[in-house]
Amino acid sequence: MKRRSETKRKLSDETGNGLQMAPELMLELARKAAELLVARTETLPGENAWDGEFRQGLEKQLLKDPPEAGRPPEEVIEQAAREILPIAMRLDHPRCFAFIPSAPTWPGVLADFMAAGYNVNACTWLVGSGPSQLELVVIDWLRQWVGYPESAGGLLTSGGSAASLDALVAAREAAGHPERATVYMSDQSHSAHIRAARIIGIRPECIRLTPSDDLFRLDMDALAQAVADDRAAGFKPIAVCANAGTSSTGTIDPIEAMADYCEVEDIWLHVDAAYGGFAVVTEQGKELLRGMERADSIGLDAHKWFFQPYEAGCLLVKDLSTLENAFGVHHDILQDTIWGANHPNFSDRGLQLSRSVRALKIWMSVQTFGMDAFRCAVAKGMELAARAEAFVRENQTLEMLNPASLGIVCFRINPADTAIDEEELAEINKTILARIFWEDKAFISSTLLHGKFSLRLCIVNHTTTWDDVRETLEAAERFGRETLAY
Amino acid sequence: MKRRSETKRKLSDETGNGLQMAPELMLELARKAAELLVARTETLPGENAWDGEFRQGLEKQLLKDPPEAGRPPEEVIEQAAREILPIAMRLDHPRCFAFIPSAPTWPGVLADFMAAGYNVNACTWLVGSGPSQLELVVIDWLRQWVGYPESAGGLLTSGGSAASLDALVAAREAAGHPERATVYMSDQSHSAHIRAARIIGIRPECIRLTPSDDLFRLDMDALAQAVADDRAAGFKPIAVCANAGTSSTGTIDPIEAMADYCEVEDIWLHVDAAYGGFAVVTEQGKELLRGMERADSIGLDAHKWFFQPYEAGCLLVKDLSTLENAFGVHHDILQDTIWGANHPNFSDRGLQLSRSVRALKIWMSVQTFGMDAFRCAVAKGMELAARAEAFVRENQTLEMLNPASLGIVCFRINPADTAIDEEELAEINKTILARIFWEDKAFISSTLLHGKFSLRLCIVNHTTTWDDVRETLEAAERFGRETLAY
Repeated sequence: MKRRSETKRKLSDETGNGLQMAPELMLELARKAAELLVARTETLPGENAWDGEFRQGLEKQLLKDPPEAGRPPEEVIEQAAREILPIAMRLDHPRCFAFIPSAPTWPGVLADFMAAGYNVNACTWLVGSGPSQLELVVIDWLRQWVGYPESAGGLLTSGGSAASLDALVAAREAAGHPERATVYMSDQSHSAHIRAARIIGIRPECIRLTPSDDLFRLDMDALAQAVADDRAAGFKPIAVCANAGTSSTGTIDPIEAMADYCEVEDIWLHVDAAYGGFAVVTEQGKELLRGMERADSIGLDAHKWFFQPYEAGCLLVKDLSTLENAFGVHHDILQDTIWGANHPNFSDRGLQLSRSVRALKIWMSVQTFGMDAFRCAVAKGMELAARAEAFVRENQTLEMLNPASLGIVCFRINPADTAIDEEELAEINKTILARIFWEDKAFISSTLLHGKFSLRLCIVNHTTTWDDVRETLEAAERFGRETLAY
Repeated sequence: MKRRSETKRKLSDETGNGLQMAPELMLELARKAAELLVARTETLPGENAWDGEFRQGLEKQLLKDPPEAGRPPEEVIEQAAREILPIAMRLDHPRCFAFIPSAPTWPGVLADFMAAGYNVNACTWLVGSGPSQLELVVIDWLRQWVGYPESAGGLLTSGGSAASLDALVAAREAAGHPERATVYMSDQSHSAHIRAARIIGIRPECIRLTPSDDLFRLDMDALAQAVADDRAAGFKPIAVCANAGTSSTGTIDPIEAMADYCEVEDIWLHVDAAYGGFAVVTEQGKELLRGMERADSIGLDAHKWFFQPYEAGCLLVKDLSTLENAFGVHHDILQDTIWGANHPNFSDRGLQLSRSVRALKIWMSVQTFGMDAFRCAVAKGMELAARAEAFVRENQTLEMLNPASLGIVCFRINPADTAIDEEELAEINKTILARIFWEDKAFISSTLLHGKFSLRLCIVNHTTTWDDVRETLEAAERFGRETLAY
């Protein structure tokens, strides 16, 4: 828009500046960092999926006062790559099946590098019109994928917790900020929603965790009963959260039925699709998630099943004005930032004012690989989960605890020909979990399913192969048989 | 902790993976991105401090469906660097004085690159013990700089807005989550606090913006009166926010007096030091910010005056248990993440569960340059602001509207020998603002000071020289004289 002058300026000699570097050194250090990162991706599959250390040991290495004088930058980079960053769960390891893994693509990583280098702030149109337009583009892709109308919109967030917070605030304001507000979700819902509800001022006793059914889905009768009881007692239901899917089992709540119910009852429906939402780019996932487009808001995390580095969350709302009504604030210091109609300030849509350009990683990786590659990578997770289920069902030592859903498989050691009580099964399976942790390079985690201790694989890494899944299940089975033999 | 196996594994041929790249290409693309970023830092001072575009033009270039097949990655990187990232305010330009600028150091940028590449999640000790320890180290540095006791602690956040939100939630819970809660701040406070208060459920009519005095400081009598009136009317004051300093003028509220008052009244004191807090690393700043160490919580943004890329906020609390009481939640899916006493899960201290490793950039840049360089760079901002004040005071066309405070200078065109009414002065100065915007490479912004339209420089960029400041003031003066001559 403004004409750019192209003249270079020498760094002023007037004031010494100890925070700058010569261009040659900058390039050299970037090369070093890139080499370390690329070498890591090559050696990663041979490493363990987890590393970690007690605080005492790490403190000895790292808890030091900041130096008055600087150190050689190569040494600093090496220390970060040797002593700090690898001492962690490797969320992108092909055998990291714990919690919800995250395996970014290289263009996504480079996008974060470029976003930091340009250091743009996607807060307002005035301060970042290019980045704001890019966010509109990426939001529009997501809008179309979930089946929202053109009037829908949203913003990128730090993750599902922030998306849930922003959604609940919008829901509360849309309901007129009533006293004695209540929110509803199944007992399988993510703790992020409980925390978000507490943050916005819903008292713990007003957060209703309704019982889930045998397949860990929200029970519609229990929801209707809870709402009816609350209304009779003078509470004001402001939001229902649906899971798509749950972090424990990947279960998808009955979204269509919940949408019907929430329409009739005039309650905001938020769909937590942080983990499972990106399944919508596949035919199978679109079918499974049907009804999501009827929700008032949807949270999705691109750092989960869309292969981006942290942090890349998203909140979509069906009616964009609900967000802007809830979050828009005036500030004299920002009086210059009102660009005019149809030029959104993303800071009016959520918690953050200053915001890095999270859209860049999604845009760059999709541009580089194309949607077909993303579709195949998401579909592979579901396919591997289905194969894992078949493996478990055919195996005499293992028991499925819930059908595979999206990318999650819940199972345990429980031989078909024995009758071991629940307490002992829990102890056995805790032992298996520990043995995989200590003796195998895979890393899996556990959950509780209506009181039953369950092992659990979450398969959402595009580099994971069937061998990775099979050998991990075989290790669990082998450790199981050994434990049972004692 | 676990033995690492060092064998490499070939990428499996079993499943094609369209989201991976050959190591040589990864390195080549990283080199390209680095070259673009380094070349940018060389040409930046010769460019305008601002660029931007209307939505219509940007949409034409960018609003396209995602491609089914990928594009050459070099082309994608070039498009981002040509059409998207530079179409924005250049917050790190030496003549970007608008709002609160942000000029990161190269090790900070590389740290974000490495954080994305390793993709660690600093949510829990189990998932990221190295990154968690690093965050403890950086938090400990900040704790010492602000003068907090060893029992204090905190977490890194997306920015000041999130810090303020987390602080207000902790304040509310520490006060027992009363009905009819009220919060207090001066009318100069950042809108982030108003938004944070609204998010946690404080109704707009319960957010008290008390009048500021002639120097834009919170007025203690007005605060005491407001609290007394509210208590008499049955409201429950839960928090007072102090500015250190305000975004408009850099003004520091009377923190000592506010601390005395809040102690007696048993009200949580939060200090918003998002912009000014890092002045504490200098002798002069430490003196100016005295009393901050008595607050219950302090928010600071390392992406402002500590030379880090977005996002790098921080919340410190004097009593760490206030945060953990407010934010800790239990979740079955995370049952494996309880490491044991003294191994904190940072996700129990704030809104976010998944969290990137924001500590790395602060740590790497301090290690590389040393604290002396940071101290000098922060001090230079204050020194340049003081020189700008002297320049304005000696100039017959310009008028200081408030003494320079921290790095901020508020002034306007108002010749000493004329008597122009306020309305006309506002129009004249809006014209000057527009002319600087369109005709000069500097970018400055405006604010309202007790109704007076003010031009404003915020000088917190380590690459800014006195020439940058002087020539911008001279341009304002020249445009002023020309405008007045019509």
